[in-house]
Amino acid sequence: MQPLRTQNIGLSLIKEMELRGSKIPGVVSLAQGIPSFETNEHIKKAVIESLSLHNIGKYSLSPGLLELREMVEEVLRKDGISYDHNNEIIVTAGSIEGLAATLLAILEKGDEVIIPNPSYAAYAEAVRVAHGVPIFIDLHKNDNWALSIDALEKAKSAKTKAVIICQPNNPTSHIYPESTIRELAEWAKNNNYFLIFDEVYKDFNYTAKPIFHLAKDSKYRGNAVYLRSFSKAFSMTGWRVGYILACKELAREILKVHDSLVTCAPVISQYAAMAALRYQDELINDIMIQYRKRRKITLAHFNKLGDYFECTAPDSGYFFFPKILFKNSGSKKTAIEILEKAKVNIVPGIAFGPAGEGYLRFCFGRSEEDLNEAFTRLKNYFHNSL
Amino acid sequence: MQPLRTQNIGLSLIKEMELRGSKIPGVVSLAQGIPSFETNEHIKKAVIESLSLHNIGKYSLSPGLLELREMVEEVLRKDGISYDHNNEIIVTAGSIEGLAATLLAILEKGDEVIIPNPSYAAYAEAVRVAHGVPIFIDLHKNDNWALSIDALEKAKSAKTKAVIICQPNNPTSHIYPESTIRELAEWAKNNNYFLIFDEVYKDFNYTAKPIFHLAKDSKYRGNAVYLRSFSKAFSMTGWRVGYILACKELAREILKVHDSLVTCAPVISQYAAMAALRYQDELINDIMIQYRKRRKITLAHFNKLGDYFECTAPDSGYFFFPKILFKNSGSKKTAIEILEKAKVNIVPGIAFGPAGEGYLRFCFGRSEEDLNEAFTRLKNYFHNSL
Repeated sequence: MQPLRTQNIGLSLIKEMELRGSKIPGVVSLAQGIPSFETNEHIKKAVIESLSLHNIGKYSLSPGLLELREMVEEVLRKDGISYDHNNEIIVTAGSIEGLAATLLAILEKGDEVIIPNPSYAAYAEAVRVAHGVPIFIDLHKNDNWALSIDALEKAKSAKTKAVIICQPNNPTSHIYPESTIRELAEWAKNNNYFLIFDEVYKDFNYTAKPIFHLAKDSKYRGNAVYLRSFSKAFSMTGWRVGYILACKELAREILKVHDSLVTCAPVISQYAAMAALRYQDELINDIMIQYRKRRKITLAHFNKLGDYFECTAPDSGYFFFPKILFKNSGSKKTAIEILEKAKVNIVPGIAFGPAGEGYLRFCFGRSEEDLNEAFTRLKNYFHNSL
Repeated sequence: MQPLRTQNIGLSLIKEMELRGSKIPGVVSLAQGIPSFETNEHIKKAVIESLSLHNIGKYSLSPGLLELREMVEEVLRKDGISYDHNNEIIVTAGSIEGLAATLLAILEKGDEVIIPNPSYAAYAEAVRVAHGVPIFIDLHKNDNWALSIDALEKAKSAKTKAVIICQPNNPTSHIYPESTIRELAEWAKNNNYFLIFDEVYKDFNYTAKPIFHLAKDSKYRGNAVYLRSFSKAFSMTGWRVGYILACKELAREILKVHDSLVTCAPVISQYAAMAALRYQDELINDIMIQYRKRRKITLAHFNKLGDYFECTAPDSGYFFFPKILFKNSGSKKTAIEILEKAKVNIVPGIAFGPAGEGYLRFCFGRSEEDLNEAFTRLKNYFHNSL
């Protein structure tokens, strides 16, 4: 076969670790960000009902079922965000499809997309798939992974087209404060760059402060795309459903690509999404009680591993991202060694960009049983091997 | 907003017609290729069971659920086709996602993809989305829309990378004979081009001859990609599930893009697909009885409109593609006029490429009631207006 351009694109290190782990019997995985929870019974019930009430077998319109887009518009309005279901909301096959459609719409070959890192491992690959060039800038590891506009300013070039911001950030769990987001938005607007916000962890907040959503401020509509998902807060990763918010002019372009990628989001998942929105206050409240508990359990475990990891309790999401304190030969080798010797699967920090080197990511979205078993193994491993 | 490259990409004319039609009350649509049938009860039952038996809420592996890939491998083997579920079968979010992933994997910017036309309207847009250039060649309208290698040979250039073949073809319903497919395969192999076969209508055959599948011949594995779907034969367009067959080396590259586009196909739809395969003989047999009946009804209607249309009974698929015999100002204007005046929605032939001009596409996958109502309106329209 002739060489293909994708030969320079890797499968994300997260997937690589999961694949490695799947070949070793008895591994406990805290690697990929998959909640252990099953899809809620309310949602399952609504799905079963929809099978008899609606023709699930039929495509929806490309932007999604009208009823779902109307619900999204209404839910947004309660948060002070105004996007029109007719022209500014597109239901996607998960937020990753929303990202792919956005990048394919906005990028010319060779255009640069700035990715503050560490951040979600798949961004760089998504940019490369869309013929773009990812440009990493480092978040401030000594300042709770804050973002500085200076770093963005230094990274920009004539080829810069967009910035991808994970708010709250995965894997650092950092929630960018309103001041940072506003500064970023002004900078992007002045430079005429697109800002792509990945908000899949927007419902996870363990702090006292609310998460700021730029979407409330109509001043930045023309430059911003918001990617949202039902996967995380509703434990619906397998359903592949999320949505995009963008101004009419931009949404029209993204819609063409979305149509070309998947025609429409899976219809049954759109009905599941409607049920999720219908019960969202109850569902999110219930699940956050569970996540707070798991976060506390995991923190207690890390406190006992204080000689090996430096870590703070996460502000959002379901990941711990501790710094490695022991002697090591890089995060990837360390993660592989832990996988092979302790049979615990975790993700090396380097997966999230160069600034993630020296760190490891642990998903605490897994069951309490798995969390406890994983840390028992880790304690044995560290106490015996190091 | 700055001008985007997608401004040169259109929403397909099929979608444009559906959108136009949705704004006119009381329209009967024979436009988009959506079967009127609901997803079968066997499949629905299996879906409901899977909701309690499996964690549907969780991503599958990127290439799809192991169990589904194993089933696909087995089903293929019965057809004399040998592809390995581990490395050569990827479950996709419908065949259009399979096409997008394939094109994004193989095309460099500016690479050309030859599209024999008339053929499925979305190919050209998919090529453009993937930074490629669609090159149309005309099928022989006076020879039952046959494909000639001469035309391919004339269209090739240093930039040619692939050919997309819809087998059986939509909208012409033509089933390319084994001799043509073999000639095409040899030509592609000698030129080192990829052949992308869209086989979504492979289960529709109203002729006495079987449809030839090149996948049976291992000689062409390195050059060929086969796109298959559960949408058409199982009335599952809304579920967004299909699969790709490609040799290991190529599948590995396509998988990276697939992962970047959607992570995995919707899991619940993968369970629906397993049920479809489990009952496939029964389901396809039953549905083909219905399609044969609808084809016959539609043919009888066309026979009464012989002054206005020249048409043959389709060999495959669920479309009639008659030639317009009356004076007209192009297929698009004609379709719009029929939509507005007769309130019947159909697709202009130009949607399927320049060689489709002068024709119209009618979907007979709609209900008998809709078919009869549509043709009553058409007869009134033609008898009164022309």
